[in-house]
Amino acid sequence: MFAARLHERVRTLDSRVCLGIDPRPGLHAHAEGAAAEAVADYFELLLEATHDLVACCKPQSAFFEAMGSDGFHALERVMAKARSLGVPVLLDAKRGDIDTTAAAYAEAYLGDGRLAADALTVNGYLGMDSLEPFVRAVQGRGRGVFVLLKTSNPGSSDIQDLELAGGGRLYQHLGGLLRARATSLPTDARGYTGLGVVVGATHAAHLAELRRALPSSVMLVPGYGAQGGSAADVAAAFDAAGFGAVISASRSLTYSLGRSDLVADTAAADAARAATRAMRDAINAALAAR
Amino acid sequence: MFAARLHERVRTLDSRVCLGIDPRPGLHAHAEGAAAEAVADYFELLLEATHDLVACCKPQSAFFEAMGSDGFHALERVMAKARSLGVPVLLDAKRGDIDTTAAAYAEAYLGDGRLAADALTVNGYLGMDSLEPFVRAVQGRGRGVFVLLKTSNPGSSDIQDLELAGGGRLYQHLGGLLRARATSLPTDARGYTGLGVVVGATHAAHLAELRRALPSSVMLVPGYGAQGGSAADVAAAFDAAGFGAVISASRSLTYSLGRSDLVADTAAADAARAATRAMRDAINAALAAR
Repeated sequence: MFAARLHERVRTLDSRVCLGIDPRPGLHAHAEGAAAEAVADYFELLLEATHDLVACCKPQSAFFEAMGSDGFHALERVMAKARSLGVPVLLDAKRGDIDTTAAAYAEAYLGDGRLAADALTVNGYLGMDSLEPFVRAVQGRGRGVFVLLKTSNPGSSDIQDLELAGGGRLYQHLGGLLRARATSLPTDARGYTGLGVVVGATHAAHLAELRRALPSSVMLVPGYGAQGGSAADVAAAFDAAGFGAVISASRSLTYSLGRSDLVADTAAADAARAATRAMRDAINAALAAR
Repeated sequence: MFAARLHERVRTLDSRVCLGIDPRPGLHAHAEGAAAEAVADYFELLLEATHDLVACCKPQSAFFEAMGSDGFHALERVMAKARSLGVPVLLDAKRGDIDTTAAAYAEAYLGDGRLAADALTVNGYLGMDSLEPFVRAVQGRGRGVFVLLKTSNPGSSDIQDLELAGGGRLYQHLGGLLRARATSLPTDARGYTGLGVVVGATHAAHLAELRRALPSSVMLVPGYGAQGGSAADVAAAFDAAGFGAVISASRSLTYSLGRSDLVADTAAADAARAATRAMRDAINAALAAR
């Protein structure tokens, strides 16, 4: 199951880094009409260069979709490479719909097809029944689902922080619904289910609060680095043993060369490996300093 | 701009029907590995058969995504056919993310690429700043954006109906934020902007309430037919002149033959045309009876 597999990698590799894969075709040297291929070549190499330094990887579907159907071919290639290296794939697609449509998304991304991942981010605005097709993939197939709870953007307060007449804030209420749903799901040896949550690194206080409130949910924490979250900020996402969360970064790991003619070469691989190792070590140091 | 173009078709065709395109590959006869092509052939034909009976069409991205990258090729073909027939494409993909990621989705679906549509459904859980890249496509490119407000599933009450400490329910609060955002957007001759909302046909009382509360937002109303909304239910979504909304149906229009060996033939075209005309007439009769 997803939580067990993720934690086994966290333990053996001593890494809590999730490698964010957010391709920007404009930064890659490529022949006319071959942007998606250049992107796939580049991120296949970066996965090879960093696979033993990361707990998982997180392709951002939006950046592949922006390349049209060619982009989905590139996404299939990148996910196949991750699978071949044993790196769990957490696809960041923030899908959400109802009924048979939600089931179609679950089939697409948590089924057996070429776009299927080990875990998927989803949006819960449509209610708990809309999440059921995804939760069934947690229960039946051992996959992971990460529900958006508190995001890292300033405007996340517009809806997520609303105070409810019944007490508490909206993200806390949704957290309670998820905690209740998780009680019937299988856990790994550390007590975590496949029903996780997304909490931005820019909300250090929320990380500590939600770590306590949702003891069986793995947290996916984006917003590290480029968006402003520090290693000290994100330490609160982990349990006392240093499990229960992964921290993702994208640009700071994969585009640190600061060039716009990137190719899949040794310089790119070395830069990604150095940046990923530094992030891994910074998080581990912050955990040790708690 | 989108609202003007939609209303011009509503007026000249006297149709308020949005043709939902929800492909189910299992219902189509096809050679091994050619499901996506069979789906594209079928829906191209159905668009030809119904284009003068519908205000717009609404491909459901999930069902194309479930076919993998081949499905995105099929979606590109179906959207190109709709464009060639002059039928506005409202892509139902319920996307939502922050910052540059939201911008990538806006580029993918409201930009100039092969997957670009005339309008897109989006999810506002992440806050108003997350919607800005989409609203910019409304302002700069004349596209349409439809924000999920109140969905047709039973579980929509879990989040959308929550009572707020400040008064009102969550979907009403989000509606207020959208109304405020719309004040600076251009309107068509009937007073509508490109910033619309999605309200399920199963909530007749909400349709009337939101028609009053959001006078400049076109409503996309799914859930007609198969999900239980009737023509009398949805009449409340329209303004006094019969504009300001489109009603979508999918299975009841496109899969009414009840077969699982469908091909792009006269029987399929005739069935879709008859079902679409009947829906158009039922809605118009319900409006006339108000």
